[in-house]
Amino acid sequence: MTEALIPQAPETPNDARQAAPLRELKNMRPSTADVEAAVHAIADRSRQAARRMSRANRAWKDRGLRAIAAALLERKAQILAANSTDVAAGKTNGTSAAMLDRLTLTEARIQGLADALENLANLPDPVGNVVRGQTLPNGLRLRQVNVPLGVVAAIYEARPNVTVDIAGLGLKSGNAVILRGGTAAAATNAALVTVLRDALESVGLPADAVQSVDQYGREGANALMRARGRVDVLIPRGGRDLIQSVVTNAKVPVIETGEGNVHIFLDASADEHMAVEILLNAKTQRPSVCNTVETLLVHSASTVLPAVATALRAAGVTLHADERIRAALPASVDSVRATDEDWATEYMDLDLAVAMVDSLDDAVKHIRTWSTGHTEAILTNDLGNAERFIAEIDSAAVIVNASTRFTDGGELGLGAEVGISTQKLHARGPMGLTELTTTKWIVQGEGQIRA
Amino acid sequence: MTEALIPQAPETPNDARQAAPLRELKNMRPSTADVEAAVHAIADRSRQAARRMSRANRAWKDRGLRAIAAALLERKAQILAANSTDVAAGKTNGTSAAMLDRLTLTEARIQGLADALENLANLPDPVGNVVRGQTLPNGLRLRQVNVPLGVVAAIYEARPNVTVDIAGLGLKSGNAVILRGGTAAAATNAALVTVLRDALESVGLPADAVQSVDQYGREGANALMRARGRVDVLIPRGGRDLIQSVVTNAKVPVIETGEGNVHIFLDASADEHMAVEILLNAKTQRPSVCNTVETLLVHSASTVLPAVATALRAAGVTLHADERIRAALPASVDSVRATDEDWATEYMDLDLAVAMVDSLDDAVKHIRTWSTGHTEAILTNDLGNAERFIAEIDSAAVIVNASTRFTDGGELGLGAEVGISTQKLHARGPMGLTELTTTKWIVQGEGQIRA
Repeated sequence: MTEALIPQAPETPNDARQAAPLRELKNMRPSTADVEAAVHAIADRSRQAARRMSRANRAWKDRGLRAIAAALLERKAQILAANSTDVAAGKTNGTSAAMLDRLTLTEARIQGLADALENLANLPDPVGNVVRGQTLPNGLRLRQVNVPLGVVAAIYEARPNVTVDIAGLGLKSGNAVILRGGTAAAATNAALVTVLRDALESVGLPADAVQSVDQYGREGANALMRARGRVDVLIPRGGRDLIQSVVTNAKVPVIETGEGNVHIFLDASADEHMAVEILLNAKTQRPSVCNTVETLLVHSASTVLPAVATALRAAGVTLHADERIRAALPASVDSVRATDEDWATEYMDLDLAVAMVDSLDDAVKHIRTWSTGHTEAILTNDLGNAERFIAEIDSAAVIVNASTRFTDGGELGLGAEVGISTQKLHARGPMGLTELTTTKWIVQGEGQIRA
Repeated sequence: MTEALIPQAPETPNDARQAAPLRELKNMRPSTADVEAAVHAIADRSRQAARRMSRANRAWKDRGLRAIAAALLERKAQILAANSTDVAAGKTNGTSAAMLDRLTLTEARIQGLADALENLANLPDPVGNVVRGQTLPNGLRLRQVNVPLGVVAAIYEARPNVTVDIAGLGLKSGNAVILRGGTAAAATNAALVTVLRDALESVGLPADAVQSVDQYGREGANALMRARGRVDVLIPRGGRDLIQSVVTNAKVPVIETGEGNVHIFLDASADEHMAVEILLNAKTQRPSVCNTVETLLVHSASTVLPAVATALRAAGVTLHADERIRAALPASVDSVRATDEDWATEYMDLDLAVAMVDSLDDAVKHIRTWSTGHTEAILTNDLGNAERFIAEIDSAAVIVNASTRFTDGGELGLGAEVGISTQKLHARGPMGLTELTTTKWIVQGEGQIRA
């Protein structure tokens, strides 16, 4: 496989040498057709790189991941300098503190990215795994094996860690990746992509296995979404608006991730201590992530509401409660009046909608109306109710007597997480490396024909 | 589960009582908005029916399938009468003989449909199958199980057998189906859907698990394609134009099926007898289906071309050959000159494109340029070439030394076939019942929280 050693033309899309002539030609603003042609060229190089990646064995891919980890640490000064440009621009533009935090890289965070790549290198290779197989009565030897998807694209917001994260997952699973990060992180992402490409080349893997379309802005993202036949899957990572925009506009296959309007149903028989512990964990341990609980449904016969509400309020949670809940709360627990908007809201903050229901059926009905199909949990000691909840709730993860925070690839033993799919096709729930593969049927015979 | 016994309102979409008022209201032509509302109402009833189907155990679903089989035979006079109306109209409209054949039902074909339903009833239930599971270190019991997709829609051409076929597969896998058959088969499909619904009701399964939007014509099909959130998957079955139209216009998840520009590469070392037998089988056994070979690539060092070409020509196959092949053919074998269009064509007839290549690399390059990613085969005695072909060809099925006609759910042991997916997400290659399911993660604990 010496082709990896053939010198590559300097086609880095984040390379100013390449992007500049196009801009000059079109008076600093490339036309839609120009951007489309440029993105198609990137995708075609990605296809070539994907073919080479698909034939790289695990040892070679892991060498690439470790080379990237080492390069991130070696060149952290360059990465941090680029990042401080983005952060300074963000501050000037009045970016929120939470967004600035997501945008900011530190030495410790770069070390974290390098550690994650090392963990990825230690995971088994999903490629080549035999899903099923048999020898047919006519002697045909049949096996269905996992193979890389090919060209994996990602569109995400200004979180530079996603650049390294998606590139690592894509490479480990034998794919080539095309990235479109947020404009607010453009300098950081450009620095990271350069480091990633250089590291790949240093071990003889194709630099074009990691490319970016960031320099083409929103038009580039649009061209990527429309590149049917050139992009095998597009993964949007970010908030609701980003995901909905991609899902609605994409002409290439998309895996929808992340939106989690998560419910916990406190059944009449739920244990008080367990209810308090799980609610505190599910709401306050990390409120900004998608597996945090957003609505609590309380059975009207439950006696544990006062203890649960008191504990949540003491932890700083604002309760958005319906009238029946408000009437049942102790005088010491304040709340705000809930509207239908609360049932629909993924707060991602220290807020919780709380409604009273009279039965498991009513809880299921509320969840069917408002859930995004991510994760729902029941806290109960009633076996029949647990079984009915498992059977009737149509979500990616259904949990009995545990925190909703467990809906996570790492927690569920997948090793790495690409995202949490809220769609039903291809992948549902936490996606690991295998979800970045497809399958191929391999049939071997010695002259068999069909009767 | 007594809810199945609650009387259903006569909401059959193929019921003239329901469709008539809408047409009268709008002067015989319902508006797009009216059609959309009507299709949404159908989809919402389908969702209700899907919830009931998802809880029906295998014995109950199999009872439904057998009731349908019995009803098809009992009411065959009614079905054949409706079919003869469609066939007569088709003849008047100058429909081709091949299309008329696909449209026509006979007693024997109805018996075949009933037999297929009986076979389906004998297959294992894909629902409830545990894909993987473990007990985590913290004691959480985890399993990922197959569950029905929910609402499965199909858009297909005037082949009434698909109505019964998709309904049977959908029901066995615990889904509800919404059908849109070709207008040319409208009377037959209406009769079949009535029989199917009555049979489901007779065993206490929801009639709305089978519905049709045929009475809303093209507008109905469009509304179905746009019913995002209401339709879990849409499967187009038919020719290239139908599939491309659905893939391009659908806003709901689609599984692309069927287009097969299938290649066989005759390597230098291929055995002559095997090559003749496999080519005859792959081209002439059933030329009109998607796994029939469409292009033969012949290594320039192979000596078996004369025997293969003579046998194919004797079997009535027209050879569309490039110049080098034409020069190498025996004088007794005539051919027509191939153009690029031939490399791109899925003839589905007794025609075969034939090109000469100088290496495995050239064969792979030709295939990458022209293949639809369905099935490709290599005939060789060279182990290295077989392995390289398997590794480098990115198609749903890759075959060594056997006929391409084996890419078929029945032949590969899946029991039943929904279609052959040529996409990479969710399902690739022959799709069985499992491909009509998704998965759900079920997590059971006793108060675990995340650290």
